[in-house]
Amino acid sequence: MSTPHLFALTPGEPAGIGPDLCLLLAREAQPHPLVAVASRDLLAQRAALLGLDIDLQDVAPGHWPSAAAPAGTLYVWDTPLAAPVEPGKLNQANATYVLETLTRAGQGCLDGHFAGMITAPVHKGVINEAGIAFSGHTEFLADLTHTAQVVMMLATRGLRVALVTTHLPLRQIADAITANRLERVTRILHADLRDKFGLANPRILVCGLNPHAGEGGHLGHEEIDVIEPTLERLRTEGMQLIGPLPADTLFTPKHLEHCDAVLAMYHDQGLPVLKYKGFGAAVNVTLGLPIIRTSVDHGTALDLAGTGRIDSGSLQVALETAYQMAEAGTGAR
Amino acid sequence: MSTPHLFALTPGEPAGIGPDLCLLLAREAQPHPLVAVASRDLLAQRAALLGLDIDLQDVAPGHWPSAAAPAGTLYVWDTPLAAPVEPGKLNQANATYVLETLTRAGQGCLDGHFAGMITAPVHKGVINEAGIAFSGHTEFLADLTHTAQVVMMLATRGLRVALVTTHLPLRQIADAITANRLERVTRILHADLRDKFGLANPRILVCGLNPHAGEGGHLGHEEIDVIEPTLERLRTEGMQLIGPLPADTLFTPKHLEHCDAVLAMYHDQGLPVLKYKGFGAAVNVTLGLPIIRTSVDHGTALDLAGTGRIDSGSLQVALETAYQMAEAGTGAR
Repeated sequence: MSTPHLFALTPGEPAGIGPDLCLLLAREAQPHPLVAVASRDLLAQRAALLGLDIDLQDVAPGHWPSAAAPAGTLYVWDTPLAAPVEPGKLNQANATYVLETLTRAGQGCLDGHFAGMITAPVHKGVINEAGIAFSGHTEFLADLTHTAQVVMMLATRGLRVALVTTHLPLRQIADAITANRLERVTRILHADLRDKFGLANPRILVCGLNPHAGEGGHLGHEEIDVIEPTLERLRTEGMQLIGPLPADTLFTPKHLEHCDAVLAMYHDQGLPVLKYKGFGAAVNVTLGLPIIRTSVDHGTALDLAGTGRIDSGSLQVALETAYQMAEAGTGAR
Repeated sequence: MSTPHLFALTPGEPAGIGPDLCLLLAREAQPHPLVAVASRDLLAQRAALLGLDIDLQDVAPGHWPSAAAPAGTLYVWDTPLAAPVEPGKLNQANATYVLETLTRAGQGCLDGHFAGMITAPVHKGVINEAGIAFSGHTEFLADLTHTAQVVMMLATRGLRVALVTTHLPLRQIADAITANRLERVTRILHADLRDKFGLANPRILVCGLNPHAGEGGHLGHEEIDVIEPTLERLRTEGMQLIGPLPADTLFTPKHLEHCDAVLAMYHDQGLPVLKYKGFGAAVNVTLGLPIIRTSVDHGTALDLAGTGRIDSGSLQVALETAYQMAEAGTGAR
């Protein structure tokens, strides 16, 4: 790498384990400069609680670090809390603080200060209780970046799974698998694997909607009516799309060996295998944004904040993935 | 074991790899006597094609073997074909032959000749084309044994997954998860884990229907309306039922370590992980029958019949599972 990339890290919910994860991470040197967009006081308080001796160095627009921090140092773009934080205790007063960290990081990406952002978990409930409509990082960043359609992809070492539908009751899924949605999601997945992961002609395995991918119409017609014609149309543009395949036999070496990503039709079709394979080391990547954003795949774990009994494996993979994407993107442009 | 158990093995579709699997298996000694219910001519012909020197010894009711066969020997209850078989070529004429092997094995179990039956794959299509309504081994054996409700469970070393619904289009699943069905399936799973697997008080993890198990009603109401009250009612009888849990995080060591089986609401929620984990060594067990029946988890692989390029791993696990079930059942009674 010629120029070091600068990355933003948002610790998310201040009463959760996000601040702890950032501090644990700072014990070791990272290959790129990393800026925690967070309250300096919060980080100092949590470090004391955890007995960690981390040097918090202030940075800000115009005063960015030019090199990666050494082990034991964390760069902080100080973002003040609205109210003091007690680990494990949610406080509506800090909802605006959480959103401010996301806005700073996201806008910093759009403005070219950051090569990408890595997010620790937020608590949707407390933000909504504070009177702010908020359905998650993904939607917030889509709004911030004026993006109409994003795609959720989870990744672990050796497997990527993207979803056509995400957080939808099971009974609504079949109707949500329209040709239009499938085409938009497939285009985003294909383009981002190419542009953000550096895969010139990505090979994508596509699940059917029904068991046995409908078994020729005996177990459902959506494969015949919607999925097959859509894939066929996209293949004429040169995309490598294999399927629709039965989901229960797709996740086996014969199929996975030569694939860059799996496109699952819904949440519980694709994610159980991914989380089984990548336990503790899976990462959530939002595709379709004009910026790079990766996230841990776990929640705020309020009961563990301040205890030190946490595993930063998922955050580590989220960082690695963001680094790889930034490097692949630079190469491809 | 005091008494050797006698087991029936049905090779299924004669043009598929079933006969090959039985012959490959006979190269090594089994711990129990095993009777292939099949055409002797078919097995002799296939053995010649594969270059296998297997001694086919005729057995029949009244002339059962009293000990396990040595390596290189296979006991055969000769069941004549209706027409000669060419590997890889389906022939409707032999549909009645296939069903006769299943009837002999199943009735032999009911009559106490066999401790259990292990089935290689049949080809549903060719049986139906022969004018015989046939929707699979499971339904056939349910009819033969006058069983109203059976439960499909797949197992591999270290994981068992049973299903509340099986081969149903995705859009019909939510309505099929009724309190009545869930209760019947759970009772069968619980009883068979106890009686056929020797688990005194089995611990069962139950998946939600919706992503995140409905997230408190935000992503679907079936957990609140149907699943939770049903599990609660069954728990009052002493059953250990944990859930409903989100399927994407259920299949992780924290949960699986202390569980005897997972109950998934539908096919593609539970089976991708099981087949990923147990690739080539998974087995299908039909619960709820008055007999023991296990099966390979793969198809007829017509193109591989007679080639020798096959893996008998799944059949081996199907046999092991049937042996274990027979031993556990004997102990429990």
